[in-house]
Amino acid sequence: MLLSMAFLIRPSGFGEKTSFQSNMSEFDLIRRLQNTVNAGHADVKYPADVGIGDDAAVLSIKNNQQLLVTTDTLVSGVHFPSETPAADIGFKSLAVSLSDLAAMGGEAGWFFLALTLPQADETWLDEFASGLAALSETAGVQLAGGDTTSGPLSITITALGLVPQGHALLRGTAAAGDLVVVSGTPGLAALGLADYKKNQSTAGLSWLALTRPQPRLALGKALRGTASSCIDISDGLLADLGHIAKASQMGAEIWLEHLPQADVMQLLQVADRWNMQLSGGDDYELCFTLPADREGELHDIAAKSGVSLTVIGQITEEPGLRCLLADGSGFVPRQAGFDHFPDSGK
Amino acid sequence: MLLSMAFLIRPSGFGEKTSFQSNMSEFDLIRRLQNTVNAGHADVKYPADVGIGDDAAVLSIKNNQQLLVTTDTLVSGVHFPSETPAADIGFKSLAVSLSDLAAMGGEAGWFFLALTLPQADETWLDEFASGLAALSETAGVQLAGGDTTSGPLSITITALGLVPQGHALLRGTAAAGDLVVVSGTPGLAALGLADYKKNQSTAGLSWLALTRPQPRLALGKALRGTASSCIDISDGLLADLGHIAKASQMGAEIWLEHLPQADVMQLLQVADRWNMQLSGGDDYELCFTLPADREGELHDIAAKSGVSLTVIGQITEEPGLRCLLADGSGFVPRQAGFDHFPDSGK
Repeated sequence: MLLSMAFLIRPSGFGEKTSFQSNMSEFDLIRRLQNTVNAGHADVKYPADVGIGDDAAVLSIKNNQQLLVTTDTLVSGVHFPSETPAADIGFKSLAVSLSDLAAMGGEAGWFFLALTLPQADETWLDEFASGLAALSETAGVQLAGGDTTSGPLSITITALGLVPQGHALLRGTAAAGDLVVVSGTPGLAALGLADYKKNQSTAGLSWLALTRPQPRLALGKALRGTASSCIDISDGLLADLGHIAKASQMGAEIWLEHLPQADVMQLLQVADRWNMQLSGGDDYELCFTLPADREGELHDIAAKSGVSLTVIGQITEEPGLRCLLADGSGFVPRQAGFDHFPDSGK
Repeated sequence: MLLSMAFLIRPSGFGEKTSFQSNMSEFDLIRRLQNTVNAGHADVKYPADVGIGDDAAVLSIKNNQQLLVTTDTLVSGVHFPSETPAADIGFKSLAVSLSDLAAMGGEAGWFFLALTLPQADETWLDEFASGLAALSETAGVQLAGGDTTSGPLSITITALGLVPQGHALLRGTAAAGDLVVVSGTPGLAALGLADYKKNQSTAGLSWLALTRPQPRLALGKALRGTASSCIDISDGLLADLGHIAKASQMGAEIWLEHLPQADVMQLLQVADRWNMQLSGGDDYELCFTLPADREGELHDIAAKSGVSLTVIGQITEEPGLRCLLADGSGFVPRQAGFDHFPDSGK
């Protein structure tokens, strides 16, 4: 009976359920996470003043910095197939949150993990933690707290980052004439999903883009003071550029033939490829704008941040988005974006 | 087929899915939350520099302050019966996180909501938001971001608070001879649950303690500089005092006859009442310690923070917890605490 359990299993932070318990399993679970994810403690950029083990974490923020905070949830069977390897789930759960910090020009500092598990499975947990650690170590970010509960598998990560006062990259600050730039190759994650659905393929660049997306933290940081607006394209290039355009009270045109192509996309019909690149989503590249007279800075920024950058369009006074071919003709994409509750709309 | 959805419904912050979508339902959902919960914007203590609507929130922290961060998850059917009114779920989801800030001596600043819903039900959402708003308004705390996803009903709230540098109330700083003090009446929430299970009673003080717990933010703030350690007793008085004792490398004794009693508890057998008060849990009162020569300050602190305070024991050099009667005899409680994964222990 669920009711008999009601309110008796209550929320608890990572500091709960320690030696006073006769049953140590939740404590073990937390310790395993902490030991794996924070193993490379020396590489943490901003160690928490008080981390896991009290009611809340205590963090210091310098006076000339602003704090960035973002929260994302991944639900089993919704955001990833239930058979997904735990390490991939761990990696991606953190990647989607760090990508939001990157899109704001932030440096990643800490993250908080709310993990809901059907049961405390040590093997699953160790693999999950190893995937988290693979990304947290390269990003220098610390697991500073969280909560573990029993229930259907779901992961919510809240990531905190820092940005120098006034330097956050926003959405609503693009100007007419600004160039639209995208990092990497949009559409790779959608291709990885299509290949998996078609022939269970889990190989190659597109599968990596889907399961191990690299948050573009170095790029976001390099864009401070140069980009006039920035967003990550997790909802799809068109939808997310649409967010920049609308927030800036502008429009935009996308030059389809300029979209960067990967070798693995060569077998696709061109219209299919464009649709995948415009609307596929689940990419964690950045889309940003910059004044046209600063285009020359892109080469250095790409070199510094280790990712390719491609000019793919321009911000326009005219509202709305237009996908254009070189001959001036238009292309109407199959699907513009995504909604989590498609059946309940008005 | 779940697989066909895999990776296609992807995490998105509150800034996603706006005008570019033909289907506006997720946007509506977010706007409804934001409008209800942040309606009393003038009363927000620390308005976000950038709130809902971008990849991450941007917050300013003063130089002489430290940031407190805590995350808690409530899962339907685990932490609350599935038939619980949405407004109660909203209220309690925020209360458990704010209680952690209170236990650290913090002032509540902002919260981030990760809401997983089976479907976008506007009526449910409006009630949920009204419950959230009831507490966020009295606490002066701002909903500064979040995520909405589809899946089994689950609420994760990450709350951020502020504390003057070096003044956070910790667990590991109690000293031998310090008095143990508890706020309010521990055991009320467990009594509320027992009454509900027995006769579906949803009336009175105990039901309110269970469904609308008041985070003791004013008390936590008033205890800065006075309390030598502090914790909230969401896991039960005994388990949580155990956390203080262990973290402080001390022990503690509890004087059972000193436990504050409520009128609604008068029908209980004394041993049943003690068990309820020691181990019931789901109370969001504070348990703290202070040097014995500062006991005189308790009256003013209680008056200032609007909650009763009762000395119920003492920190001891001897490790472990002892429940004592006035005649010196001991009492062995039925259940010490709680574990979310009781079947997987070693």
